[in-house]
Amino acid sequence: MGHGTNRVEDMASPNNGTTAPATANARETIVEIHSVCLPPKKTAFQKLKKRFGDVFFPDDPLERFRNQTWRNRVILCLQSLFPIFTWGSQYDLKLLRSDVVSGLTIASLAIPQGISYAKLANLPPIVDSSFVPPLIYSVLGSSKHLAVGPVSIASLVMGSMLSESVSPTQDSILYLKLAFTSTFFAGLFQASLGLLRLGFVIDFLSKPTLIGFTAGAAVIVSLQQLKGLLGIVHFTGKMQFIPVMSSVFSHRSEWSWETILMGLGFLAILLTTRHISMRKPKLFWISAASPLASVVISTLLVFLIRNKTHAISFSEIEKTKTEEMKSLMQIGHLPKGLNPPSSNMLYFSGTHLALAIKTGIITGILSLTEGIAVGRTFASLKNYQVNGNKEMMAIGFMNMAGSCTSCYVTTGSFSRSAVNYNAGAKTAVSNIVMASAVLVTLLFLMPLFYYTPNLILAAIILTAVIGLIDYQAAYKLWKVDKFDFFTCMCSFFGVLLVSVPLGLAIAVGVSVLKILLHVTRPNTLEFGNIQGTQIYQSVKRYREASRIPGFLILAVESPIYFANSTYLQERILRWTREEEARIKENNGSTLKCIILDMTAVSSIDTNGIEALFELRRRLEKQSLQLVLVNPVGSVMEKLHKSKIIESLGLSGLYLTVGEAVADLSSTWKAHGQP
Amino acid sequence: MGHGTNRVEDMASPNNGTTAPATANARETIVEIHSVCLPPKKTAFQKLKKRFGDVFFPDDPLERFRNQTWRNRVILCLQSLFPIFTWGSQYDLKLLRSDVVSGLTIASLAIPQGISYAKLANLPPIVDSSFVPPLIYSVLGSSKHLAVGPVSIASLVMGSMLSESVSPTQDSILYLKLAFTSTFFAGLFQASLGLLRLGFVIDFLSKPTLIGFTAGAAVIVSLQQLKGLLGIVHFTGKMQFIPVMSSVFSHRSEWSWETILMGLGFLAILLTTRHISMRKPKLFWISAASPLASVVISTLLVFLIRNKTHAISFSEIEKTKTEEMKSLMQIGHLPKGLNPPSSNMLYFSGTHLALAIKTGIITGILSLTEGIAVGRTFASLKNYQVNGNKEMMAIGFMNMAGSCTSCYVTTGSFSRSAVNYNAGAKTAVSNIVMASAVLVTLLFLMPLFYYTPNLILAAIILTAVIGLIDYQAAYKLWKVDKFDFFTCMCSFFGVLLVSVPLGLAIAVGVSVLKILLHVTRPNTLEFGNIQGTQIYQSVKRYREASRIPGFLILAVESPIYFANSTYLQERILRWTREEEARIKENNGSTLKCIILDMTAVSSIDTNGIEALFELRRRLEKQSLQLVLVNPVGSVMEKLHKSKIIESLGLSGLYLTVGEAVADLSSTWKAHGQP
Repeated sequence: MGHGTNRVEDMASPNNGTTAPATANARETIVEIHSVCLPPKKTAFQKLKKRFGDVFFPDDPLERFRNQTWRNRVILCLQSLFPIFTWGSQYDLKLLRSDVVSGLTIASLAIPQGISYAKLANLPPIVDSSFVPPLIYSVLGSSKHLAVGPVSIASLVMGSMLSESVSPTQDSILYLKLAFTSTFFAGLFQASLGLLRLGFVIDFLSKPTLIGFTAGAAVIVSLQQLKGLLGIVHFTGKMQFIPVMSSVFSHRSEWSWETILMGLGFLAILLTTRHISMRKPKLFWISAASPLASVVISTLLVFLIRNKTHAISFSEIEKTKTEEMKSLMQIGHLPKGLNPPSSNMLYFSGTHLALAIKTGIITGILSLTEGIAVGRTFASLKNYQVNGNKEMMAIGFMNMAGSCTSCYVTTGSFSRSAVNYNAGAKTAVSNIVMASAVLVTLLFLMPLFYYTPNLILAAIILTAVIGLIDYQAAYKLWKVDKFDFFTCMCSFFGVLLVSVPLGLAIAVGVSVLKILLHVTRPNTLEFGNIQGTQIYQSVKRYREASRIPGFLILAVESPIYFANSTYLQERILRWTREEEARIKENNGSTLKCIILDMTAVSSIDTNGIEALFELRRRLEKQSLQLVLVNPVGSVMEKLHKSKIIESLGLSGLYLTVGEAVADLSSTWKAHGQP
Repeated sequence: MGHGTNRVEDMASPNNGTTAPATANARETIVEIHSVCLPPKKTAFQKLKKRFGDVFFPDDPLERFRNQTWRNRVILCLQSLFPIFTWGSQYDLKLLRSDVVSGLTIASLAIPQGISYAKLANLPPIVDSSFVPPLIYSVLGSSKHLAVGPVSIASLVMGSMLSESVSPTQDSILYLKLAFTSTFFAGLFQASLGLLRLGFVIDFLSKPTLIGFTAGAAVIVSLQQLKGLLGIVHFTGKMQFIPVMSSVFSHRSEWSWETILMGLGFLAILLTTRHISMRKPKLFWISAASPLASVVISTLLVFLIRNKTHAISFSEIEKTKTEEMKSLMQIGHLPKGLNPPSSNMLYFSGTHLALAIKTGIITGILSLTEGIAVGRTFASLKNYQVNGNKEMMAIGFMNMAGSCTSCYVTTGSFSRSAVNYNAGAKTAVSNIVMASAVLVTLLFLMPLFYYTPNLILAAIILTAVIGLIDYQAAYKLWKVDKFDFFTCMCSFFGVLLVSVPLGLAIAVGVSVLKILLHVTRPNTLEFGNIQGTQIYQSVKRYREASRIPGFLILAVESPIYFANSTYLQERILRWTREEEARIKENNGSTLKCIILDMTAVSSIDTNGIEALFELRRRLEKQSLQLVLVNPVGSVMEKLHKSKIIESLGLSGLYLTVGEAVADLSSTWKAHGQP
């Protein structure tokens, strides 16, 4: 065992080689051993409390209330319930000026966007959601830059899910009721997630899932716009790729070349302005103003053409507009004006309740994901905190209130917030300004929108959703992580070919499967010592790491659970067989000890402990010793409780691999073993 | 930074304190730094191949074929397909003697058990599965001690699942067809799992799940036996606790005191013999023989009583027996004799096909779990290997063949195998001996079983299943791991109160949820240096570990995934805030660097990488440096591909925490920072 003993000395000596060689012999058997501690004792209740705190209160919301007077606590409490109290007292004219400018800017975007997105959700344009929700958010929300409004994904999902069961044109009142009811459930779901502090649920929508999902949804929406852009009158009610494409090509006789020309023209203008703003962020106002400008120009154009001559080319525009207006008129009990009360239209029974709840939950979670992500993005740009659970409650209450005032699902919109941020918004007051501007417009200027052609709304929607297809992100996924790319593709094709909720479910399932697969088949690595140090590293990865005769050092890179305990046990035994075969081939010294480095074993359950017991028993039959190194706190505790530490014996547990090797080698030497 | 520099010297010096103090100054700035390696380069295909191999071929089945002549390879291939070739050539008379003794012993257990379990599955006693399946297993199976036959869990699950849709007394032919069809699907499912090498699926039935499930199922079975033990004629067809108990007490008028007395008497005898055998394993034959003895005695007793007088007390026994026999007679096209062909009774269409498939999959996975676990248990007692995937194929083919020869689901039975092992079985020949003994009995002695009372079968079943309630294991779970105990209880009450498949699904769901919860909310620990060593450990757990001024060293104990990347980012920022507050309180030196020990981060995905980017950006805004230490191979590769290493800079990646601290401290000192 001469080699082994030299190594002990190697490890004990410093790396710089200044030690006098005379002391080397004296040091050979001196090995300082640190014992492995149990974590501080805690009762089951304390542990549960800590675990509970970690899961539900990772942000430690009560931290700021500590060491405060009662008066301060009340103020802090009010501030945390209504963030407006935090910044309200310091609000001044300078801030107001910035907020007015940015508020007016987003209002000019909000009106055409509101009408387009309502159309996306198959709702009449009067259902504009840019008034009540922003007001509520400005009181409850903790983000300063979030601009609230309907978003394309949620509108699209609501439109596609509801219209598969109920026709928005034939059953318009039922459809409207369903839309408000699902908005209510979306809000209820969001607020409950926040109240129950279950915010981590949205973390299960991983980035790859969302990239694929958004791209798939964007393609679906774009295809729907072909109706407006091509001037097709008879269009399929389905949303999937194949039926829509077949519908487009089977109605080729309905294609109207004038509509196509005008639509493509506006599309080109909108895309160009968007491109300019992306290249030069200072010119953001060009892309912010262009939708409104396009709407105004195209409305005027249609008005003029119509006054001059009843051109055939626009007949279908007229027709659909008239149909839409008629369906609006049919809703007799929906009073005119902005945001009339609609709580009487919510219903909590009937055959379509399940659909409304399902739609509510899916649109709720999607809009929440976008809202939280957008809020976090802009907060991190200005270095302030956005509280996830509080945001959820704000968005949830805003939707519940919205559902009672003729609004459908709203959230923090990425496009509006970006414009808001660029326009210099300072506080949530910009939302109030926007809401007021929208109010005025819709109250007094709404009749002017009568002549707005469908094609311009289609062009605005297309411009918005094309930007959502992030092929560069998908390419990056491919380069960095093939499995993430696979998840992304599942989500994309699932949404495109199957259905929106199923596509999402498939992608989440695949993501969870990845976690399970990683846990089921964890890595085990063989470690070796890096010459002249105490460092032990993978022999495959570090060429300077060399095996130590007599030892097989294995690192397990995963918690040991029921799902992998049998596998790990068999894998470690296979490592042993392979190592013994290798030794036989090279005539090395016999294997005597298996060291398991448990540093990366972050958790263990009773199956894992049993597997360790079994492993020890089976290794002992082959006269091999099993040694555990550096189990983490929770693992150590369970090993202790299950008495496996006692069964391993005194030399069965070390703090570092180096100490284990040194101590065992010197023991063997003392007992005169080779 | 005087303190920090001293620490560098501390770490570089050996632990035994023999270094001359004169050299200390010279060493201060000499810090040996090891660079972090990338793992050896592999193409995406190679990685996929390795991953594929890890998942599907963890046992490396082709290992033994390497470096062999072609002739040897053919022999090895035959041996691995039919393990009988491995031991067949060395079989001798001495082995045969042991196998005959043990085979006859298990046959004496097999006959009453076979009849009882068939009754449990609501099948006529002629459907005995102890002939064809054991013969097939003896050729294909790789375990030497596994005794094959029907098992209580699978019989019970099949009985309860099928009889909820089809009445076994009124629709007996359909019921029999369904039983054979589900046996076929069970076999098909088992064999496919083995062929596709998806054996790890059964690992998802964790020990706690199985303990709870078995106990719940045992209680359900025990309650069903109340019918026979109390002599109730009109019994509920349901299996759940509440309807069965209400049925028992609502038919109190049917309770027959003579039946109860005789039943309890035999139950006491059976339980006593079982207890004796458990205390003194050498007396195993007492418990092995007592079921057969009880059947013989009770049958004789009933025969004598009946001949003397038509006692009212046994009228109901007679009645049910006659009904059973009648239903047997009804199956006109089932030829008499043992194991008649039944392939004509399989059906692959019709309304009940889905039920048959579902029952097949659930009984298949349950019997597989028992079979593999029992096989492994006895293999490890005699120190030989049982190949999981091969066992699955053997059990699967045995059931597929069984379904065509009037057998229902069979597997390696724990009780039989234990008796087999205790009786000294040496090879699978004991299964052949048992099958032959059963053949003779059933062919010639079957009519004698006409007078066997139901109560004795109930008593045998009760004795068998009471032993399955492992309350000690449940108590151990409670002590070692509260969450595992919770899983166990979910499984127990789910089976008892809801239904067998749903109870199982709930328990598997809870187990998977535990994995996800662990991944979603991973531990982060603050590390400190243990004085005079290079060891860094949790400051909470090791009192001798002390923080290093200027540094915050955090260890992340989990892979970084989409499910936890946001949480980890926020948690690390909270650590930073807390550390800064602590420093302020103690007037310590300012925090300058956050070191993330990535040793336990066994995997990372694109969300995790993005979170690290974001974390670095946010820390930089607070003029804090982020340093990563010791990322494992796969993580390092992804960090490299995503260019985060470059963005962290030269001093952003170290191999050990010690080296990071030493190098950064000396750099700061060189730049004259405090």
